[in-house]
Amino acid sequence: MNAPLPDHVRPRVQARPIPAAMLEALRTRFGERCSTALALRQQHGRDESVYDVPPPEAVVFCESTDDVAFVVRQAAQHAVPVIPFGVGSSLEGHLLAVQGGVSIDLARMNRIVAVNAEDLTVTVEAGVTREQLNRDIRDTGFFFPIDPGANASLGGMSATRASGTNAVRYGTMRENVLALTVVTAEGEVMRTGTRAKKSSAGYDLTRLYVGSEGTLGVITEITLRLYPLPEALSAAICTFASIDAAVRTTIQIIQLGVPIARCELLDANAIRGVNQYSKLELPEAPMLLMEFHGSAAGVKEQTETVQAIAHEHGGTAFRYASTPEERTRLWAARHQAYFAALQLRPGCRCQSTDTCVPISRLAESINESIAEAEASGIPYWTVGHVGDGNFHLSYLFYPDDAREATEVERLSEQMVRRALRLEGTCTGEHGIGLHKMGYLVDEAGPAALEAMKRIKRALDPKNIMNPGKVLAL
Amino acid sequence: MNAPLPDHVRPRVQARPIPAAMLEALRTRFGERCSTALALRQQHGRDESVYDVPPPEAVVFCESTDDVAFVVRQAAQHAVPVIPFGVGSSLEGHLLAVQGGVSIDLARMNRIVAVNAEDLTVTVEAGVTREQLNRDIRDTGFFFPIDPGANASLGGMSATRASGTNAVRYGTMRENVLALTVVTAEGEVMRTGTRAKKSSAGYDLTRLYVGSEGTLGVITEITLRLYPLPEALSAAICTFASIDAAVRTTIQIIQLGVPIARCELLDANAIRGVNQYSKLELPEAPMLLMEFHGSAAGVKEQTETVQAIAHEHGGTAFRYASTPEERTRLWAARHQAYFAALQLRPGCRCQSTDTCVPISRLAESINESIAEAEASGIPYWTVGHVGDGNFHLSYLFYPDDAREATEVERLSEQMVRRALRLEGTCTGEHGIGLHKMGYLVDEAGPAALEAMKRIKRALDPKNIMNPGKVLAL
Repeated sequence: MNAPLPDHVRPRVQARPIPAAMLEALRTRFGERCSTALALRQQHGRDESVYDVPPPEAVVFCESTDDVAFVVRQAAQHAVPVIPFGVGSSLEGHLLAVQGGVSIDLARMNRIVAVNAEDLTVTVEAGVTREQLNRDIRDTGFFFPIDPGANASLGGMSATRASGTNAVRYGTMRENVLALTVVTAEGEVMRTGTRAKKSSAGYDLTRLYVGSEGTLGVITEITLRLYPLPEALSAAICTFASIDAAVRTTIQIIQLGVPIARCELLDANAIRGVNQYSKLELPEAPMLLMEFHGSAAGVKEQTETVQAIAHEHGGTAFRYASTPEERTRLWAARHQAYFAALQLRPGCRCQSTDTCVPISRLAESINESIAEAEASGIPYWTVGHVGDGNFHLSYLFYPDDAREATEVERLSEQMVRRALRLEGTCTGEHGIGLHKMGYLVDEAGPAALEAMKRIKRALDPKNIMNPGKVLAL
Repeated sequence: MNAPLPDHVRPRVQARPIPAAMLEALRTRFGERCSTALALRQQHGRDESVYDVPPPEAVVFCESTDDVAFVVRQAAQHAVPVIPFGVGSSLEGHLLAVQGGVSIDLARMNRIVAVNAEDLTVTVEAGVTREQLNRDIRDTGFFFPIDPGANASLGGMSATRASGTNAVRYGTMRENVLALTVVTAEGEVMRTGTRAKKSSAGYDLTRLYVGSEGTLGVITEITLRLYPLPEALSAAICTFASIDAAVRTTIQIIQLGVPIARCELLDANAIRGVNQYSKLELPEAPMLLMEFHGSAAGVKEQTETVQAIAHEHGGTAFRYASTPEERTRLWAARHQAYFAALQLRPGCRCQSTDTCVPISRLAESINESIAEAEASGIPYWTVGHVGDGNFHLSYLFYPDDAREATEVERLSEQMVRRALRLEGTCTGEHGIGLHKMGYLVDEAGPAALEAMKRIKRALDPKNIMNPGKVLAL
């Protein structure tokens, strides 16, 4: 069911075999926690992208930063690649072992190291997932807001600079990671910051490693900002005659400074899928799904302001809900959109192309991408974190159908090139991985690309940290 | 009136003279905009720190990114240092020409390049000051909130990762710079990001250059986030029996999620100075000065919540004000504190030591620093951006009195070492410059320091970008 690697990616595939001495050292230290079983390797050699490459040669289940440092020191000694693995939910081929090597599974590093409620900080091991974190700290009255959809690990979310639905209010991983523990490419352990909320002390290593996709070191612990659980929460949905009207509504919400917590757009196709899947009767037209956090009075005021703005732009069927049950019902469309869409074409795969543009260019960006998808005949649907100018066009296709695979790649490329023309980025939150390396070259330009390459070479001189991703050296 | 360089800094002073050929090339291109006049060089060879070192050999007034690139290409060719200069308001010796070279004055690069109101972004040249920016965009209904006190240039604020009073709500320069134009150490021009609000495309060069203090390249343009001018604004002051009570009030405000815009602490000494200076009769006790932004109802709700919290902690003399005139009166103490303090010791200098700690350690941190200052007999006063755990102890002393200079250095060191012990940072917002290089070594630890040095060497192989600052190579 997977697609072959596109031509521009294939040349990067090369094996760098694990020498027997290294495998022996890993087996001696880790025993059964070091495995070369094919099924395990295959499970660690893929993510949510659609490509097929050979799996890593071995998988090591690490339980501590020291474990990770041991593996990396071995890898450094023998110039063997290492690829950190969280839950495998990345989307652009980040985890594919294009040069072989060892997959470092961090799922067992799932301890909450320290909750500092007075400081609104928490330190976790890299394998803790966002759902686990919020479950474990529920009694403190605080929560961690970043929600990329998947129940990803916080190590993985840091490594890809993830964001998602709450970012419009709470920021992305960039704003919410205070400090990291990182195993360097030499197997040294470093701390990239302190627990202070801000600092001007030297180069911002934290932000350099957030979004580095495992190519500069392995993130093993993360200190995160927490937020007080809001006193009141309310959700709302509203339907519009066009994408333009929904986006204009969003722009005005942001311009007025309404502290909206979520502002999601779904297109008519997404709603159609959900209606079929869940036997709902939502209007099959562009819809905004919103959430408001604050004091009871504040949430009421936000809801009324947004309703008035939506009304100005012809929004209809404005409904809102304050109880958890009602909120869940309103958000059903958003939560079910992915699975509902897959049902529209049994057995298909979904490729979700992610771009982010200045919000004034968002309607143009979405409308043209949709027009191209319509013309191609490939089924698609759209969802957008529109408060941030970030949206995804998801194409439903059969990867082993060469015509469809090529067509999806072409649609995706047109969408990315448009985002770059409109002063946006080739990825708002999914990352570069393997798939978008060519686009990064165009987005960054020669001088910034050269700076990134120099940083990579300086911090990973043997090119063992998730090699062949982000940058072609 | 200036102090000699402390012993740990002096060895870094070394001249790297400008060859005649380079001076000739600069004069040919820049004419009178290239100067070697002593008065100008001296003016560009100091900042608000207290040290005396020889001035740069030449000053070039640049008017464009191309001008800067020309100077840097010359400097690269002849291995001559360059030091970017904004308004000269940095505090830790950032601008001192410890290795000679050329001061690049950016004050004439003061154009607003583009206001994109729909996207809440603005692009400015590096010499634009924050007051100029807010004046020039006043009619748009938006503002740029970061306020470090001085009317600094936005290039300088980016280079030192500045913050100040509004950071508790709006973040620091780290959160508010979207992208930079940078002249690299080879004189190439690069753009570190796009106008998209978020991105996962490659290494975060923007955040690497924010806070790099001119040691990796010269920032020539900055794209910033803007915010809607709040519908309503209110200020409040409240007096407490102890620093502890004021800090406990602050912690509770933050824990409850009150979106307070400013939360400043002044100690009794600061108030005493202001009372004498301005003939006021404020209670000479720890005081919180606060500001609230939001809708009219929201601001009222915030003010009431904070008043109730302050009351719980014994806060008295709670006063608030909504009109601009009343607000200015309430904030008089904060705005006059520096000049009022200097009047307490005619002819003295003020050294302001800056640390930031997790907010739960803030009261301990301030109280012990105050006790040490009391014991030393050196006059001092305290002000803190306490919502962020950031505070300054300012010592009033005569730099040419060796005993006082030594004593201030000792007090400052004790305060920094305490911050590091309490999981904080040696600088929340002033930067490393020359003065705090030793503390950065201790804070970062060997592996992180090595990573910073590798980055510096990779991006500035000839060590010409503000050499001898931040890192000792």
